[in-house]
Amino acid sequence: MVASEVRALFAVASRPEVVSLAGGMPNVSALPLDDLGDIVRSVVTDQGATALQYGPAQGDAHLREQICAVMAEEGIDASPDDVIVTVGSQQALDLVTRVFVDPGDVVLTEAPTYVTAINTFAAFQADIVHVSMDEDGVVPEALEETLARLESEGRQAKFFYTVPTFQNPAGVTLSSQRRRQVVEICRRFNLLVLEDNPYGLLGFESDPMRALHADAPDNVIYLGSFSKTLSPGFRIGWALAPAAVRAKLVLAAESAMLSHSIFNQLVVARYLDVHPWREQIKDFREMYRRRRDAMLSALEAQMPPGTTWTRPGGGFFVWLTLPEGLDAKAMLPRAVSERVAYVPGTGFFSGDEGRRNMRLSFCYPTPEQIREGVRRLAGVVEAEIALRDTFGNVPAPQSSGGDTPRPDLP
Amino acid sequence: MVASEVRALFAVASRPEVVSLAGGMPNVSALPLDDLGDIVRSVVTDQGATALQYGPAQGDAHLREQICAVMAEEGIDASPDDVIVTVGSQQALDLVTRVFVDPGDVVLTEAPTYVTAINTFAAFQADIVHVSMDEDGVVPEALEETLARLESEGRQAKFFYTVPTFQNPAGVTLSSQRRRQVVEICRRFNLLVLEDNPYGLLGFESDPMRALHADAPDNVIYLGSFSKTLSPGFRIGWALAPAAVRAKLVLAAESAMLSHSIFNQLVVARYLDVHPWREQIKDFREMYRRRRDAMLSALEAQMPPGTTWTRPGGGFFVWLTLPEGLDAKAMLPRAVSERVAYVPGTGFFSGDEGRRNMRLSFCYPTPEQIREGVRRLAGVVEAEIALRDTFGNVPAPQSSGGDTPRPDLP
Repeated sequence: MVASEVRALFAVASRPEVVSLAGGMPNVSALPLDDLGDIVRSVVTDQGATALQYGPAQGDAHLREQICAVMAEEGIDASPDDVIVTVGSQQALDLVTRVFVDPGDVVLTEAPTYVTAINTFAAFQADIVHVSMDEDGVVPEALEETLARLESEGRQAKFFYTVPTFQNPAGVTLSSQRRRQVVEICRRFNLLVLEDNPYGLLGFESDPMRALHADAPDNVIYLGSFSKTLSPGFRIGWALAPAAVRAKLVLAAESAMLSHSIFNQLVVARYLDVHPWREQIKDFREMYRRRRDAMLSALEAQMPPGTTWTRPGGGFFVWLTLPEGLDAKAMLPRAVSERVAYVPGTGFFSGDEGRRNMRLSFCYPTPEQIREGVRRLAGVVEAEIALRDTFGNVPAPQSSGGDTPRPDLP
Repeated sequence: MVASEVRALFAVASRPEVVSLAGGMPNVSALPLDDLGDIVRSVVTDQGATALQYGPAQGDAHLREQICAVMAEEGIDASPDDVIVTVGSQQALDLVTRVFVDPGDVVLTEAPTYVTAINTFAAFQADIVHVSMDEDGVVPEALEETLARLESEGRQAKFFYTVPTFQNPAGVTLSSQRRRQVVEICRRFNLLVLEDNPYGLLGFESDPMRALHADAPDNVIYLGSFSKTLSPGFRIGWALAPAAVRAKLVLAAESAMLSHSIFNQLVVARYLDVHPWREQIKDFREMYRRRRDAMLSALEAQMPPGTTWTRPGGGFFVWLTLPEGLDAKAMLPRAVSERVAYVPGTGFFSGDEGRRNMRLSFCYPTPEQIREGVRRLAGVVEAEIALRDTFGNVPAPQSSGGDTPRPDLP
């Protein structure tokens, strides 16, 4: 399948009869629409002269204060002066890449990693080098070996991009012990860390993990977002960066868009002021926890032996590994004809890995839909195993990018 | 003065006792806040499931249809398929530059030109080549000579960036006859035109000019914006581009921010659906016309001989030329101490031109403030002339960038 075919397939997958375990859309149906309606109205009527005008390139000062309060939940002690508001954390990722990466520069990432980060690094012609992960996140020894190898080759990576908590797509979380090791290794190799943390407050089982930034503020650029804890519709994300970097990011933001919507910034600021946002996040956590539970118990009950998967403690995603000889990308058309969709693993690597993997999302479908989707998926896997046992391994198609849907796909 | 000094000076200039003729902020006080409040509320309460979710990277389909209706006012017959919604037209400018410009590539612009375009082109390390203007806009012969010279040097410009109507900063408009010539010359030299048109519907004296795009849709990328005809607070701009370019812009937009705020897009779409937006633009035109008239008659009455200025037929800006031997940048601190501010001309050129020029904005201050500001400014100019006559020419300071304020400065 080439990219256009995969995209066509995902278009089919968005039909209502298909259970999509593919998309990463948050479930915004839990939001209090009447309260939010009052908030957006009052921002226009009470603060119109500011809200409808141009705003500062760095972002609204009061919102930047509130963002610091949000980050304090993860142990970060930051100044609003070092925060810059962006169009989702995606723009922060783009601006950081723009400031740091010249063509051919090395960027380290986990393997697998967030697909749009791969696209952004590739757009700036970075040389993406993967570092392996296991169920406790990136493997410190692998990180150290990679850095030593690069050093011996006379190459210096620009930064290590990581989603340490409830990773997209793997659903795993970097353990506390490894956080200390990763920070220490990066400091030793003088390597900047780019910590992308959209899911950090969506943990199901414990208090939020301590952010990497909390223990290495001079060495970590932290990216945050309200897309999962409030709504992606306002496109409010941010970067927290050491002062010298932050100044460059503000100039880049000004060049990229003059300034983000001050109206949206004041809406989020007022929401944080007047709405019990911590309670709202608790509600989200409960909802996503029930969906995660539905997915894990359905996988346990339905999947044939030889299939394995991660057990996320939060976030949106489960990472599944098929039995040997199966190919998730080749299997996708058959899955869609059985009315279930997922994202093949190949899209989450810069190279040719991930054939036996798929990302399953539990964020958007209901628990009932999840159970039904997993039941259908297990049937497809069983049929594939039977084919493999009869005819041998399925021939692997050539990967050619475009393996992932856009984030607006249900 | 270095950049930081100029910025400090503009900080002083934002004090209430100073009449600022510097900033380019639209006057949003004329907007119907109650109506807009109802609109934003209903988008949340009636369309929340869509408005608060991720949206498509190209932008909302209905809004793109409406944008085509707006552009039809300028003779453009476009398909919504070829429109991409951006964070103000600034992001469209940035994305076009990102797609087309490699370091060292030539970009043609008018002289003077929009300062943030210079910054964006410079951020992508373009070689900016100016083409001279007069009161009828860019001079076709100069454009042709420049292109022939580049061709003889074996160089090909990537595009010609132009603000053909009510130009920022010069306030001049490309005549109908010259529009035909410019399009013909660019076609002959196989040169793409980047037509930036934020002020096109804000003409004071006649129907809107026909856009360059209307007569050369395959050769012109058109940039539009609701920042001046509605509000900059929503940050809704757009690009209209030939299909092949548009596809690249959508990919670049996805990499830059995933998607713009769908909430804001639905707000603007609903505003265009339910509000008499053409009447609103008429009101804006009347308001800005009165301010333009106040500025022109005050300049006529107050300015000493040897001072000249442009007579804009619309938009926000007058471009003033001081008598010989005077320097607008050197004069700025004295003007601010006399409680009037402007933008020195040097910021609107990539090189060392514009010393005798300044940009005067009539968009934000009231007619009374404009009259008082021009009175103060004329006094400063007279004092400078007296100094020049006594001591000879004022020594020219070294220009070092940063000569312009941010757009959020009143």
